[in-house]
Amino acid sequence: MALVVIGGVAAGMSAAARARRLDANLDILVLEKGPVISYGACGLPYFVEGRVTDASQLIVYTPEYFRKERRIEVRTNSPVSTIAHPRREVVLQTGERIRYDRLIIATGAQCDISGIVGADAPHVFTLHTIADAERMRAFLRERRPRTAAVVGSGYIGIEAADALRRNGLAVTIFEAGGHALLREDAAFTEAVRKQLERHKVELRTGVRIASVEDLQYDMVVIGIGFKPNVTIAAEAGVEIGRTGAIRTDDRMETNLRGVYAAGDCTEVQHLVSRRPTWIPLGTTANKAGRVAGANAAGGRDRFPGIVGTSIVSIFGTGFATAGFSVAQARAEGFSPVGARIEGNSKPRYYGGSKTTVELVADRSTRRLIGGSVIGDDGAGGRINVIAAALQAEMKVEEFEQMDLAYSPPFAPVWDPLLIAAQQLMKEL
Amino acid sequence: MALVVIGGVAAGMSAAARARRLDANLDILVLEKGPVISYGACGLPYFVEGRVTDASQLIVYTPEYFRKERRIEVRTNSPVSTIAHPRREVVLQTGERIRYDRLIIATGAQCDISGIVGADAPHVFTLHTIADAERMRAFLRERRPRTAAVVGSGYIGIEAADALRRNGLAVTIFEAGGHALLREDAAFTEAVRKQLERHKVELRTGVRIASVEDLQYDMVVIGIGFKPNVTIAAEAGVEIGRTGAIRTDDRMETNLRGVYAAGDCTEVQHLVSRRPTWIPLGTTANKAGRVAGANAAGGRDRFPGIVGTSIVSIFGTGFATAGFSVAQARAEGFSPVGARIEGNSKPRYYGGSKTTVELVADRSTRRLIGGSVIGDDGAGGRINVIAAALQAEMKVEEFEQMDLAYSPPFAPVWDPLLIAAQQLMKEL
Repeated sequence: MALVVIGGVAAGMSAAARARRLDANLDILVLEKGPVISYGACGLPYFVEGRVTDASQLIVYTPEYFRKERRIEVRTNSPVSTIAHPRREVVLQTGERIRYDRLIIATGAQCDISGIVGADAPHVFTLHTIADAERMRAFLRERRPRTAAVVGSGYIGIEAADALRRNGLAVTIFEAGGHALLREDAAFTEAVRKQLERHKVELRTGVRIASVEDLQYDMVVIGIGFKPNVTIAAEAGVEIGRTGAIRTDDRMETNLRGVYAAGDCTEVQHLVSRRPTWIPLGTTANKAGRVAGANAAGGRDRFPGIVGTSIVSIFGTGFATAGFSVAQARAEGFSPVGARIEGNSKPRYYGGSKTTVELVADRSTRRLIGGSVIGDDGAGGRINVIAAALQAEMKVEEFEQMDLAYSPPFAPVWDPLLIAAQQLMKEL
Repeated sequence: MALVVIGGVAAGMSAAARARRLDANLDILVLEKGPVISYGACGLPYFVEGRVTDASQLIVYTPEYFRKERRIEVRTNSPVSTIAHPRREVVLQTGERIRYDRLIIATGAQCDISGIVGADAPHVFTLHTIADAERMRAFLRERRPRTAAVVGSGYIGIEAADALRRNGLAVTIFEAGGHALLREDAAFTEAVRKQLERHKVELRTGVRIASVEDLQYDMVVIGIGFKPNVTIAAEAGVEIGRTGAIRTDDRMETNLRGVYAAGDCTEVQHLVSRRPTWIPLGTTANKAGRVAGANAAGGRDRFPGIVGTSIVSIFGTGFATAGFSVAQARAEGFSPVGARIEGNSKPRYYGGSKTTVELVADRSTRRLIGGSVIGDDGAGGRINVIAAALQAEMKVEEFEQMDLAYSPPFAPVWDPLLIAAQQLMKEL
């Protein structure tokens, strides 16, 4: 049995490793179009910042490791041009044909900047691959830019702005919509804006950048246009969902039998809305890749879906979200009610910091359907509690009585999560 | 309608405040035997340590605050001697009789050291009230002790040892049983021992101290003998559960109609074992007190129970537990399987620290029934995720797929919680 995996970053390598663990005899080949595999793309901003000094630190495993330790063949610089599924073959750009019994598509996503005039200029960057980050780092070192424009206020835009500001640049973020970090929530966006301003980064919402030629900045980072890489899959007859990403069942199998997909090229189930969603993140890629690998090797794993958990550090403060904001929940057909409170991360006599928690519930079912946490410490842990509650379909009254850990060095006796739940109970 | 609350610390004041919020016309009287109300007993070790410089910082609200802002009458230094329920009266030690329509018993717990020979010596301490802590602080200042024995390795013993060591004393902890922090788990206890030893505190397990007269230490802190204060309740006919604490229903009502109980004097439901348990903690006292107050004021609140979540800082490292260890789960009638892993709190290229996670599941139902987390950062957030999963009765396969937040400043792409779940899946 031959398993071919297209793509050697998060989903692809998780899939290959998991398949090997379940079947010691499988022939496993990973085809990666780029020069490196298995890197943590989420670490790129910290390399640009200078905190991570060597990009090789972001590479978790090398092809040699997989070859020797896992008996997984990895071919880098090997882009695939087509999948000929009726013949169970992938065709490389070189014309070489490789047979498979099972195929895993983990082609990821890309930053499509073709719609932006002037995006090919040497002072314009995306931040998606190690090569992107190294080019940016070299530009910072050699050209000593003093001003930067960041296009887009998603995760990459915000993290790039943080990294460049820490390099001493004056940074302005341009966001076409009204919200930051993809959260339709005016108060959340205002908190993002204030935190950026505190560190002298300007956030200009409602400004669409169609051309970078007129932008008078020493460098430009484009953090928009992220799209799933589905062309070769779609051409082979793999079904594409309404989100524009590959559709699979909960075993990560596509409409073609024996062909699986996982990672940033794939949509997954949103466990709150019960609809397919495309939120490309490394955690989802790794988990879904692992499931695809298990099933391609004859296992029976399930990937139920996600609740849209995310966190971003803006100059040390965590901005975390899960599920839906009130506005997003309304658009999804819920009758949402939200409550937002400010608490302290620890008892005041012990120190701690201000922590803002918003919880959103559905009025008719009283189920929690979203939340956000903003704080200097504990934001990651607190959003994860909300994520667990969303996955478990907890009601507000259940959440309000949760037995959360208390000790002055860690949390106050009334955790901000519980205070938010009490407030939400009053609104329901 | 008159509501009388016996006890003015966590449960009592939460109950009184909540009752007022639901019924603006209720006459509310709180009777507190001691000189202060509404203090954070969990903060006492940090006052002994010297981090909290003034004990008054631990007092959240004063009687004056409650009188003026909430119209709640508070009488301090007013111990109750009996409850004459047939006449709906409480009798103070002064002989004064006070009528009630509804009664809330929040008499707390005490450190009963009567069984220890020599415990009344001036160099012997408990750490339960502000007066205890002030006496200890004065002793440290005036007598400059150089060695301390701590009897008991529960929360109070461990926190007192940490606080005294930070004052420069040589500290030895004596524990009669084989385990630390009430967790029947050899590996967990070894981790506690190692962390204590790293900071030059000795933990001697299996040593029962019946007399402190022969202990050659400059001071002795007794952290054992904690018991619920149930005498006046029991004498009035209030049912006492098998744990030795007051038994209530999930509305916190006792067997006597109109008489509620909450806080350290009360047992609550353990949501994993579905049996009554007595784990006296401030969080439970506040939550159950709030429910008792609501129901005494005519509301219909429920306190479902706890999952036994706790966290203690030992020289800056969090030692957190929830639910049952393998040994405890076996004693509760489960067929437990555990998996323990060591992960990193963040991606290695970003820093972070070693984090140990143990998860315990029941083999027949595959339900998570316990866990522990040890780590320098994120231990509080991680144990809360386990607590949420226990409350939601999550299975290991559900927990393994949880959508936890990922970003290098906060967590690695495979959170230690998920790695532990993957390991547990292999064992099941």
